Amino acid sequence: MNKRKIDQLLKKALPKKRYQHTMNVVEVAKSLAVRYNCNVKKASLAALLHDCAKNFSDEELIKYAEANGVRVDSVSRHDPQLLHGPVGAIVAENTYGVQDKTILNAIRYHTTGRKNMSKLEKIIYLADFIEPGRTFPGMDKLKSLAFEDLDQAVIMALSDTIRYVALSDALIHKRTITARNDLIIKKMQKNII
Amino acid sequence: MNKRKIDQLLKKALPKKRYQHTMNVVEVAKSLAVRYNCNVKKASLAALLHDCAKNFSDEELIKYAEANGVRVDSVSRHDPQLLHGPVGAIVAENTYGVQDKTILNAIRYHTTGRKNMSKLEKIIYLADFIEPGRTFPGMDKLKSLAFEDLDQAVIMALSDTIRYVALSDALIHKRTITARNDLIIKKMQKNII
Repeated sequence: MNKRKIDQLLKKALPKKRYQHTMNVVEVAKSLAVRYNCNVKKASLAALLHDCAKNFSDEELIKYAEANGVRVDSVSRHDPQLLHGPVGAIVAENTYGVQDKTILNAIRYHTTGRKNMSKLEKIIYLADFIEPGRTFPGMDKLKSLAFEDLDQAVIMALSDTIRYVALSDALIHKRTITARNDLIIKKMQKNII
Repeated sequence: MNKRKIDQLLKKALPKKRYQHTMNVVEVAKSLAVRYNCNVKKASLAALLHDCAKNFSDEELIKYAEANGVRVDSVSRHDPQLLHGPVGAIVAENTYGVQDKTILNAIRYHTTGRKNMSKLEKIIYLADFIEPGRTFPGMDKLKSLAFEDLDQAVIMALSDTIRYVALSDALIHKRTITARNDLIIKKMQKNII
């Protein structure tokens, strides 16, 4: 399926606000891809589809995950919206015909992050965080950092997420912690070498 | 080895400040044990020994862990002080002759917590957090909560720790996240039933 057709289908499938968010993420992802010499077309397509399962209900997410071999861990079972990335990757493949594994993984891990994130995964994770429709304290600082130091910006975004979630009684996905620890350890190792 | 002998040895082994902290933790652990119908002698002994490996250097912690079959994960390798609980449990057994597994586990998990914490583990974790030598914002609130709702107090202490660590570029141990998620999920399940 070509990008134009995907865009048309998404425009129908997503609520207006979510579609606008998606368009914003596409723009930011493309600029980050330019900045960090990443494939702009892939970044654009991953951003376009990153929330393709965001309007699924909790029940739909669990049902779709179970029917397609996506592991539903105890945290995701109690907070099924954490599945919209992994389920989105399956939808992107099954419904929108995306076959590129690097794009599918960027969709899959765009909410939680994971250990050994690729450059494309980091770009989609950050673009989703700093797109101009978002407002949160420290947004300007994070946006500047995103164009200066990709890894440090991802660490900051992961840390912000963790701190925000830990303020309430919401669950924290282990992949978010693993992603953050992994990037910090790699930074430590670079400083040592 | 009896408790008096252990106390004498610890007084020599630990710096004065650490020994005083230990005495404070013993007192708080005993009161929490009374409050929650936990074995007061076990709580007292676990508290007495909880930091018995705290004055080990990073190198000593890793060496002792590796020599005694304690898994040194990548996070602990980069922040070896996270091993003072697991190593402390081995020291408590080998040097101080403690054989009770429930006491050893309370020492082992007193810094990180873990999934399925026992009542004794929760008491030692909290006593270490709220002993009168500590000062942090929200201390009074947490101390009151500790005597009202053990699980909610542990969740609050774990959340505070996570938020504090996420403010810097320090690593977060996965067991801390698992402990918090586990307690929150159990609370959700109780509310449903």
